[in-house]
Amino acid sequence: MRPWNFSAGPSVLPIDVLEQAAAELSNWHGAGLSVMEMSHRSDEFVDICETAEAKLRTLLQLPDDFAVLFMQGGATAINALLPLNLIGRSQAKQADYILSGSWSNKSFTEAQRYGDMAVAASSQDSPSTNPKIPAWAWFPPTEAWQLRSQSAYVHLCSNETIGGVEFTDWPDLAQLGASDVPLIVDASSNILSRPFDFSRVGMVYAGAQKNIGPAGLTVVLIRRDLLGHALPMCPDVFNFEKVAKAHSRLNTPPTFAIYMAGLVFDWLEKQGGVNAIERQNRQKASLLYEFIDNSDFYHNPVDPKVRSRMNVPFILADSKLDQRFLDEAKAAGLVQLKGHKSVGGMRASLYNALPLSAVEALVDFMQDFEKRHG
Amino acid sequence: MRPWNFSAGPSVLPIDVLEQAAAELSNWHGAGLSVMEMSHRSDEFVDICETAEAKLRTLLQLPDDFAVLFMQGGATAINALLPLNLIGRSQAKQADYILSGSWSNKSFTEAQRYGDMAVAASSQDSPSTNPKIPAWAWFPPTEAWQLRSQSAYVHLCSNETIGGVEFTDWPDLAQLGASDVPLIVDASSNILSRPFDFSRVGMVYAGAQKNIGPAGLTVVLIRRDLLGHALPMCPDVFNFEKVAKAHSRLNTPPTFAIYMAGLVFDWLEKQGGVNAIERQNRQKASLLYEFIDNSDFYHNPVDPKVRSRMNVPFILADSKLDQRFLDEAKAAGLVQLKGHKSVGGMRASLYNALPLSAVEALVDFMQDFEKRHG
Repeated sequence: MRPWNFSAGPSVLPIDVLEQAAAELSNWHGAGLSVMEMSHRSDEFVDICETAEAKLRTLLQLPDDFAVLFMQGGATAINALLPLNLIGRSQAKQADYILSGSWSNKSFTEAQRYGDMAVAASSQDSPSTNPKIPAWAWFPPTEAWQLRSQSAYVHLCSNETIGGVEFTDWPDLAQLGASDVPLIVDASSNILSRPFDFSRVGMVYAGAQKNIGPAGLTVVLIRRDLLGHALPMCPDVFNFEKVAKAHSRLNTPPTFAIYMAGLVFDWLEKQGGVNAIERQNRQKASLLYEFIDNSDFYHNPVDPKVRSRMNVPFILADSKLDQRFLDEAKAAGLVQLKGHKSVGGMRASLYNALPLSAVEALVDFMQDFEKRHG
Repeated sequence: MRPWNFSAGPSVLPIDVLEQAAAELSNWHGAGLSVMEMSHRSDEFVDICETAEAKLRTLLQLPDDFAVLFMQGGATAINALLPLNLIGRSQAKQADYILSGSWSNKSFTEAQRYGDMAVAASSQDSPSTNPKIPAWAWFPPTEAWQLRSQSAYVHLCSNETIGGVEFTDWPDLAQLGASDVPLIVDASSNILSRPFDFSRVGMVYAGAQKNIGPAGLTVVLIRRDLLGHALPMCPDVFNFEKVAKAHSRLNTPPTFAIYMAGLVFDWLEKQGGVNAIERQNRQKASLLYEFIDNSDFYHNPVDPKVRSRMNVPFILADSKLDQRFLDEAKAAGLVQLKGHKSVGGMRASLYNALPLSAVEALVDFMQDFEKRHG
């Protein structure tokens, strides 16, 4: 019996993908070998890698002037590798950050070792227009961003996995007085869940372990004109320009994770691509948010305009019931629902591979739990 | 039909491990989930990770004062992360390198961005005592190493995968006038193939994709007193001290690769551990080297004292036959035998998971090929 898996990451994968991977684990396409046993320079693996890249490009409708890098280290590594590779664009080594929760704050903290990093906007207090919305439960409006025109880049996190805040209405920075400043987006937890407007960004990066594939793969999509600015201290394997030139095979890449990502891209294509999955994701999130909003027992504090479709944190009216909720949910086949320790309560992550029926089952359970304990 | 796989890496894995992984790929131990779908903070994964570490410690007889780090980026990343983490031990930011082939040269080149790196010894010319041995086909004797007593570390590669040179008679550096200088060993391609004397080293590192598991995992074994010297520019996720404190879960680690490594460690335990596998590895290598040495058709140029048990490069008397050799070998079920482009000819990698019967099959084939084309 396969439970519904609401993990924030590493998270649910399509069962079709897992079954295909299992079936060909020790004998890929009749080669008699596992993908894990192939040289990364072999024709077979090069084809696996290039096919995965091509499928990702199609799914994202990625413009040709973007390079696709399959890297390692997770998005947390990219938090450092971003300034190491791009801060050289700015003579004053400056960059700007939009702070909207845990992950963007982590990115900002990590970046500070490499230059003059400024906060362009932050949701650390309630919005002046609506003091009822708590800190970190909204997204700073673009008209309030204080950008420096000489900055190497502006960074934001398009989906705060912990806080449950999602922002994808990326502005045209030229209209904010920063025409030469590329927008850099950490999209670890909402990439491929909805279309992105790549004309508005210079780089998007994502750890694989939510909507792409297994942990251990990190995807960087970067406009090629932004390559070539790495600081001398940047290690070769983390130099975006060198990785791009080597087509992600500068050294041994995480071959099996790339193969798995390729299978997930296949699966997503079969679902109808990103537009189709977005419709499903909207449906899933609406169902859960509407239920929560109509209940006095459950509560989600996030500004409805920027509520995440991927991660829905919610608290119970009585936090003493948290453990019972988790235990009973598990018994009902609903797992990995515990909220992040910094927020408490619950968190339901609704990534691409989680079907609508899982959310229906969750809502049924929540309704029943409320009846019994509300 | 499973061919014999002589890949230099990513390389052959035990078929028992692949079959177990396939059997539990979508349902690990009845949890209903794949290991790939579990939060890295879940009890299940923490147990997988800690069990893998414990097994590795036992197999290596690793002293307790060593930390085990499961990292990402490959050994090529560690080439940079080593000085980033350790060069701070030396006020003059100096470290010494033993150059014995491609990989140690790569390590040296990468390290130079972080300090005053010197060549303590090199096999770049033939040894003066035996000019018949070509460059990079021997190992500089320890009595000739020119160490600086104030260096942060001395680096060597214990197995040059491309050249086929292996050196594990690690000296006591105190006797070489460098008592406070730890020896750092890149053991990517011979870790777990034979016992290591950890009393002689400060740190050993290895990409997983030869004797440990799938690519995408990098193992660092470091004496704890060497932690805490990272330069300020070192990213958090690559700071050995921080990774050690977080028990390799500072951010999302490559969870599936760690799980696979754990299965390989189980398998190795069942084979009788490192001493038992060493006997097999010695037998496999002897069989192939003896055959080559008794033939005028095949040739291995390496000083017999330091010939690698893991990687056996050999050339054919007539390089025009190379492609035919590879084609016929493949037809005979012997794959991934092509030599590295910098060396040419062939390379047979005989990692732990390759049984003696594979080497017997290779020798039979080589004998037959020689008869037909010699």
